[in-house]
Amino acid sequence: MFNQNKNHPLHHVVIVGGGFGGLYAAHHLRKAPVKVTLIDKRNFHLFQPLLYQVATGGLSPGDISSPLRAVVAPNKNTRVLMGEVTDVEPQQQQVILKDGELTYDTLIVATGVSHHYFGNDQWAQKAPGLKTIEDALEMRRRIFLAFEAAEKEADPEKRRAWLTFVIVGGGPTGVELAGAMAELAYTTLKHDFRHIDTSETKILLLEGMDRVLPPYQPELSTKAQASLEALGVTVQTKSLVTNIDDNTVTIRRRDRTEQVQAKTILWAAGMKASKMGKVISQATGAELDRAGRVIVKPDLSVPEHGNIFVIGDLANFPHQDENGKPLPGVAPVAMQEAKYVARLIEKQLRGETLPGFCYRDYGSLAVIGRHAAVVDLGFVKFAGFPAWLAWLFIHIFFLIEFDNKLLVLIQWGWNYFTRKRGARLITNQEVLPGQEVEDKNGQMPLKV
Amino acid sequence: MFNQNKNHPLHHVVIVGGGFGGLYAAHHLRKAPVKVTLIDKRNFHLFQPLLYQVATGGLSPGDISSPLRAVVAPNKNTRVLMGEVTDVEPQQQQVILKDGELTYDTLIVATGVSHHYFGNDQWAQKAPGLKTIEDALEMRRRIFLAFEAAEKEADPEKRRAWLTFVIVGGGPTGVELAGAMAELAYTTLKHDFRHIDTSETKILLLEGMDRVLPPYQPELSTKAQASLEALGVTVQTKSLVTNIDDNTVTIRRRDRTEQVQAKTILWAAGMKASKMGKVISQATGAELDRAGRVIVKPDLSVPEHGNIFVIGDLANFPHQDENGKPLPGVAPVAMQEAKYVARLIEKQLRGETLPGFCYRDYGSLAVIGRHAAVVDLGFVKFAGFPAWLAWLFIHIFFLIEFDNKLLVLIQWGWNYFTRKRGARLITNQEVLPGQEVEDKNGQMPLKV
Repeated sequence: MFNQNKNHPLHHVVIVGGGFGGLYAAHHLRKAPVKVTLIDKRNFHLFQPLLYQVATGGLSPGDISSPLRAVVAPNKNTRVLMGEVTDVEPQQQQVILKDGELTYDTLIVATGVSHHYFGNDQWAQKAPGLKTIEDALEMRRRIFLAFEAAEKEADPEKRRAWLTFVIVGGGPTGVELAGAMAELAYTTLKHDFRHIDTSETKILLLEGMDRVLPPYQPELSTKAQASLEALGVTVQTKSLVTNIDDNTVTIRRRDRTEQVQAKTILWAAGMKASKMGKVISQATGAELDRAGRVIVKPDLSVPEHGNIFVIGDLANFPHQDENGKPLPGVAPVAMQEAKYVARLIEKQLRGETLPGFCYRDYGSLAVIGRHAAVVDLGFVKFAGFPAWLAWLFIHIFFLIEFDNKLLVLIQWGWNYFTRKRGARLITNQEVLPGQEVEDKNGQMPLKV
Repeated sequence: MFNQNKNHPLHHVVIVGGGFGGLYAAHHLRKAPVKVTLIDKRNFHLFQPLLYQVATGGLSPGDISSPLRAVVAPNKNTRVLMGEVTDVEPQQQQVILKDGELTYDTLIVATGVSHHYFGNDQWAQKAPGLKTIEDALEMRRRIFLAFEAAEKEADPEKRRAWLTFVIVGGGPTGVELAGAMAELAYTTLKHDFRHIDTSETKILLLEGMDRVLPPYQPELSTKAQASLEALGVTVQTKSLVTNIDDNTVTIRRRDRTEQVQAKTILWAAGMKASKMGKVISQATGAELDRAGRVIVKPDLSVPEHGNIFVIGDLANFPHQDENGKPLPGVAPVAMQEAKYVARLIEKQLRGETLPGFCYRDYGSLAVIGRHAAVVDLGFVKFAGFPAWLAWLFIHIFFLIEFDNKLLVLIQWGWNYFTRKRGARLITNQEVLPGQEVEDKNGQMPLKV
């Protein structure tokens, strides 16, 4: 029943993944003479750039999620299918789902990436990453349980370990998480405890390269680090995590090894393609890069399969950089790629074509705490409060639904002026604070 | 380290439970010459009357929860302890926690009730109840997965079962849930699907008594039933559920037995005291009623233990009704009891006393769908839109924090005018729609 009606004359575009790439592809095809099926495992689009706010209790999951069906409902040519694609058969032009199959004329794959642990998958239990709502709620659970456990802990050394938060990875996620953690510990929770002084919280941000935000201009990295340090974050660059065990992080830094006792370790490093990369590679022979991303042609199609496109974080698009460095895995790239592919499909249906995709970089930005950010618009770089405002409005502008924009703006204004964070529920709680480590040797269940 | 400082001259009040009873007790003691410890298993206060809105995607968990620490932070004499009380020792005046103990001068127990299945605990897996955030998210998951599964289902009979929702229990929770389900199926989701027509959804509300809202005046029950039926809900009174199995609900109604095929069964019936009832009974010899609630004295204390009070849903207060019927388990009762006990403690510290507790009933109300409700204020009863407005403002007024009031009001206004429900994420998803029943014989995991 998933099959296209054979009598239906319309070209059928199947989009796998409802992130920025998939959703914008559907959006730009809404008036094209095609029929669109948008497939996702989840029933909602997630605004990942604000996920760290959920992890730190500033926003609720519902604030940064939009039901895919509601978003796509006005597009009369589009249907949504909640399902998981397991394979692709380019000969039959079929995608195979767990519970059926579907014929396509054009396939757009936009399933993104997940975090990975550089071959140390056992770290997943100890240092949760931040890609899904469940990840964010797990981080939130651990962060707030740690303060609760510290409040109860009589032993000063153990209390210090509960109040030590290690964030691995100094990219935008790590930087934003560290800033939010500092705001939380040094401002929001200041008056909430009676035994501990949350200003003793240690927030350690580890980055393997020589500066935070390595993809940005060095001067912005410097400003970002200064802002983080002003907030109270300890930034350690050129620091590689070599082991995570028993609430101890082992760090190698300039040939020296040191160990940090920390009960809460948050993972913001490492990225690995979703498994659709492998599926596409096996089905089409397309080459993958080391992270498992599909290396695409200048028109974002897969070699020798002009009707299969890969866009967004899952695509490695190396054609624009003289060193062959792929475009970064950020929302603006996915959105522009989606628009390009939609336009290309329309052109091709008219027997026309388009020159290869060209990404227009409008800049990068990252937020640091309550009112500082760094913005690099190419022609101008700025930091501090104006950058924070720019960051805020750009993010709110790109939130998919108007009610989300409104809610996030209000929540944000409220949090800003009151320095509160209302959404700090510990949910899916299996153990009480202070118990889990003794019982389980630091291996809290990752399940949420 | 939980022990009171023996040199500290202040009377120590320990409150177990951060619901309406516990929180209001702490609030009314904030200026008393006492030291207060508020213990809860969770780190947040939950506004249970709006939990059905989370279950149906209208509000987010964060909207109806307030961090206990943040709420209590301004009360300088109060500390919050996240922990679970396992026992009470009246001789030593101690409460025993899972990880320590605590000495009290006065103990206030306000741990409320949970739902129960009339001895059929195996139904818990098949028909989740609605007492916690996790319960609400599990209901939300099942409700939205059911529509997704129906969209994919080719077999008409199975599709009908996916589109049949049975709500067991016609009290306020069941009535409000049924109204919200009707709004969801017949309005919100109307344009979101391509294969199914959500107006074919069947919502069946089952009540064992001869009318819905049995504690209210009969004329309001009649109005409530009429409003529900106008919304499209099938109301069946005098109907007892005798079995829930393999997605089939067996109903006995006037000596006839009928079976309904339904994939989603929501439990809004049955109430059982939290386990602190048993603990108090064993420790003090206090009598319990059939639901496990502690039968309290006119001053809400436990017989022969004048410094142990039980308030809120966990208390059976039979002194006001000529037939000895206890006060109902609603927030206003808990709040008034909390205030009474706080005043009594202050009086007792001055060597004075108070006459027994007397509940002042300001009325009852329940909401039905988007703009109908029933309100019974004793001297006046009304229904329809004015009742809905009254319901809305009373609920928002009693939301603990101002930012929650604001957010809920906006979210509500938005949902009202757009007929949308933004918070309909399916989270903690383990299986895709349409798979679980075949795989697991209808026993979806209740774990969230």
